[in-house]
Amino acid sequence: MALQVLCGCVMLLLLLGPQVPLASAARHPALWPLPMSVHLSEDLLHLTRESFEITHGPNSTAGPRCFLLEEAFRRYHEYIFGYFMSPDDHLKFSGEAQLQELHVTITSADSECDAYPNSTSDESYKLVVHWPVAVLEARKVWGALRGLETFSQLVYKDPYGVYVINESEVIDAPRFGYRGVLIDTSRHFLPLKTILTTLDAMAFNKLNVLHWHIVDDNSFPYQSMAFPDLSKKGAYSYAHIYSQMDISIVIEHARLRGIRVIPEFDTPGHTESWGKGQKDLLTPCYQGSEKTNSFGPVNPILNTTYEFMSRFFKEISRVFPEEYIHLGGDEVDFDCWESNPFVTEFMKERSFGKDYRKLESYYIQRLIDIISSTNKGYIVWQEVFDNGVKLKQDTIVEVWKDSFYRKELADVTAAGYAVVLAAPWYLDYITYGQDWKKYYAVEPLDFAGTKKQKDLVIGGTAALWGEYVDATNLTPRLWPRASAVAERLWSPKNVRNLDDAYDRLAEHRCRMVRRRIAAEPLYVGYCEL
Amino acid sequence: MALQVLCGCVMLLLLLGPQVPLASAARHPALWPLPMSVHLSEDLLHLTRESFEITHGPNSTAGPRCFLLEEAFRRYHEYIFGYFMSPDDHLKFSGEAQLQELHVTITSADSECDAYPNSTSDESYKLVVHWPVAVLEARKVWGALRGLETFSQLVYKDPYGVYVINESEVIDAPRFGYRGVLIDTSRHFLPLKTILTTLDAMAFNKLNVLHWHIVDDNSFPYQSMAFPDLSKKGAYSYAHIYSQMDISIVIEHARLRGIRVIPEFDTPGHTESWGKGQKDLLTPCYQGSEKTNSFGPVNPILNTTYEFMSRFFKEISRVFPEEYIHLGGDEVDFDCWESNPFVTEFMKERSFGKDYRKLESYYIQRLIDIISSTNKGYIVWQEVFDNGVKLKQDTIVEVWKDSFYRKELADVTAAGYAVVLAAPWYLDYITYGQDWKKYYAVEPLDFAGTKKQKDLVIGGTAALWGEYVDATNLTPRLWPRASAVAERLWSPKNVRNLDDAYDRLAEHRCRMVRRRIAAEPLYVGYCEL
Repeated sequence: MALQVLCGCVMLLLLLGPQVPLASAARHPALWPLPMSVHLSEDLLHLTRESFEITHGPNSTAGPRCFLLEEAFRRYHEYIFGYFMSPDDHLKFSGEAQLQELHVTITSADSECDAYPNSTSDESYKLVVHWPVAVLEARKVWGALRGLETFSQLVYKDPYGVYVINESEVIDAPRFGYRGVLIDTSRHFLPLKTILTTLDAMAFNKLNVLHWHIVDDNSFPYQSMAFPDLSKKGAYSYAHIYSQMDISIVIEHARLRGIRVIPEFDTPGHTESWGKGQKDLLTPCYQGSEKTNSFGPVNPILNTTYEFMSRFFKEISRVFPEEYIHLGGDEVDFDCWESNPFVTEFMKERSFGKDYRKLESYYIQRLIDIISSTNKGYIVWQEVFDNGVKLKQDTIVEVWKDSFYRKELADVTAAGYAVVLAAPWYLDYITYGQDWKKYYAVEPLDFAGTKKQKDLVIGGTAALWGEYVDATNLTPRLWPRASAVAERLWSPKNVRNLDDAYDRLAEHRCRMVRRRIAAEPLYVGYCEL
Repeated sequence: MALQVLCGCVMLLLLLGPQVPLASAARHPALWPLPMSVHLSEDLLHLTRESFEITHGPNSTAGPRCFLLEEAFRRYHEYIFGYFMSPDDHLKFSGEAQLQELHVTITSADSECDAYPNSTSDESYKLVVHWPVAVLEARKVWGALRGLETFSQLVYKDPYGVYVINESEVIDAPRFGYRGVLIDTSRHFLPLKTILTTLDAMAFNKLNVLHWHIVDDNSFPYQSMAFPDLSKKGAYSYAHIYSQMDISIVIEHARLRGIRVIPEFDTPGHTESWGKGQKDLLTPCYQGSEKTNSFGPVNPILNTTYEFMSRFFKEISRVFPEEYIHLGGDEVDFDCWESNPFVTEFMKERSFGKDYRKLESYYIQRLIDIISSTNKGYIVWQEVFDNGVKLKQDTIVEVWKDSFYRKELADVTAAGYAVVLAAPWYLDYITYGQDWKKYYAVEPLDFAGTKKQKDLVIGGTAALWGEYVDATNLTPRLWPRASAVAERLWSPKNVRNLDDAYDRLAEHRCRMVRRRIAAEPLYVGYCEL
């Protein structure tokens, strides 16, 4: 048995050696995203559905009372064996080495089994596959979840239909801590099932943030306890609403997979649907001295606005255990504010001149004070920074504008703010062909800046805006295109060989299909059944 | 009761009058494709799931022994009522006019109930909805199928949740007789279920030709009786094969919906997968005087080639009842032929000089003779015409190259050949946004030519090539984008108002979703449940 170091993805195939035929994509482990370090031996161990077990290691600080791990053990046993229902599962291999168990050991005194994942959650793990028992070690349950995914990806079927795994060692941790997928449930309502399926697929790709753009101009599906009229009048219909129960199901499904749920309640723009259920919240627009029937952004000059926001975000901060709330702040249209004589008067009183960015800043600062009082952090879209809003130093700025995003990264980090990058990963903009390569090629730290600045880039988001997406097409549009982003954010910087990525990703998407995720094909070919 | 003439789609909403609120897209009939002539009265009739029946008219030449119609009656009853399971179905409307029945009357002595649809099938129908019994008249069952679809689209729910239909008269017939969808089962295998679902959706859009591009370079899923090795060695795997039973299921499912199944067996190019199971069929390529391991198009210089083709297409002509076979003929790469010394010798003997188009012509002509001997017609891609192959006058040429397709239409029809237009409708080329409008805007007869030439344009095809499409994404990628093509090919030329089309198509796609077709959204919004 000779363990060999696998540094970078290209060597994977070579290292498997002559014993493993490479003709079929399914006949060797296809790891995605590629771990930090993989050592694969040529020696193979067998596994069988009946005898192989995933259990708690004897020294684990988590045990059978850790529902998160118990549930993960059950799930991964099914992922490994469940979708290959073939008669040879009952074959016995008395003469050959068989892997009996995977022991999962949490080493930290607090396993965080009952906690919610957060921005500093430790996702690192170490996986050692040797006869007769494989060992997965992680400080926290979050690393164990990632390691279980890797273990499941290491198992494949040999040419005789037998489950095998190479003796191997994996040491792994993510390159970036924030690896998100944005879904948009305002342009189109997404049924609960679609969201849960998305969370499943995120876990298969080691993504860990669901950025839930839950409301927008078009509809307000969030059912507020304090302001039930918001969804009653602002949702598309009674059937297009997320109840508190729905929200809690999403949050728990995500937690069990080590995924944070960051809700976005975008203001002061993108709020048309809010106005339907909350009187006087939006700015009335004027034509000359006449009020029109249309409304602009949130009305920043009324005290009632801030009273509403205070009560509303207090609820949100309780409903979502996540430490951050996304406050939006993008694309504020100043025309309506400009048309409104009361706003003009207010601008005058405050000596804002004609600079409506100052009014926006005024609003956002008051909003931020409200959020801070709930002990939550906040994320904003880049305009809030661009428009010179005074931000607290712990603000996270999300860069979304595709043109000059590298300069924006440099500017925002130079000002000392943490950054999440979404700009090059707007997956709603579809094009013909293998656009995953474009997403894969992005290097998030490829901008002019110091080491300190680069350290402020905490990750990125694959954004699937909802103008043209609903439950009918979300899954194949998101996967495996978001997988390209997932590897970019998880794997070491030098993992970027396209040919190797193609082979692994093609098999990874087939694995997703076997796990009931309708991920679309990369190119011609087929998946083994 | 005042019947009003509906000429063109724009007037539909106006004519519905004040009794029908227009706030919701589902609250008025959304006809797609729009019939030739629609008269809608303001008077509404009620229908209930329990009492409404679709039956044979007393004078129909078809009766309960016509399985095609019996099956269609059952299906459309379910489409009309099946997906709205709500308690108010049991309400009684004693005081108001209730539609009791739809009588379907076939007027021609031969209803064609047990026949296969063909290029001259009569799809015209007349539908009169008056209390107490609606009457659908058609010369053949094909028109009855189209009329049933229209009837089902006329029924909607009023604001009180009651099924209603306007008293109305529809006279309808398609503008073009050939309205196709191309699927490609070689780049990716499509499971039987996906093909059947596609046929269902085609019927909802009154499309009538499934152009089945069944084999190509990548794989040969057709299981031949005479040459079983073709799929045994040329298919992706044993699981990626269409058995004779599968083929017959597709053909019958299509027939019951008035859809022709035209198989394409593309030669002499696009045949790499054929070579795996049929020795010496493909041309060996040479490098200098040395044979390489690669193969080019079908070898046109061997008698064995024609013996094979003769036997193969004899089988195909029996398996597919359809009167036409698509012979392909596109993108023949001459390099390999040029490299082969035996081909060079053959060219010399035949005085073809260096013009490999003459060799292609030689092959195609011999192939056409073979097809003719089976009494089938044939369709070819435009290169066969472009390369000067001598064609019989009844050849159908399919135009696929997007650049200058109008000139190609003019040239092909000037030479007297019938044409099918696919060029502007390559639905595999996706772009961001509402590209259905681009497909919708096409006018197939917009080219320089005489009336006689225009009459040679028999229709068109929405082509969804399979490079990036498989069962995971086919349905939302095809629908409702192919619906735009469907209306262009069915409805009168002047039906082209985009705003009206948007409203009807948005509701039509929701109707497809209710009928279990995962058609993607046109833009923001929602479907009533």
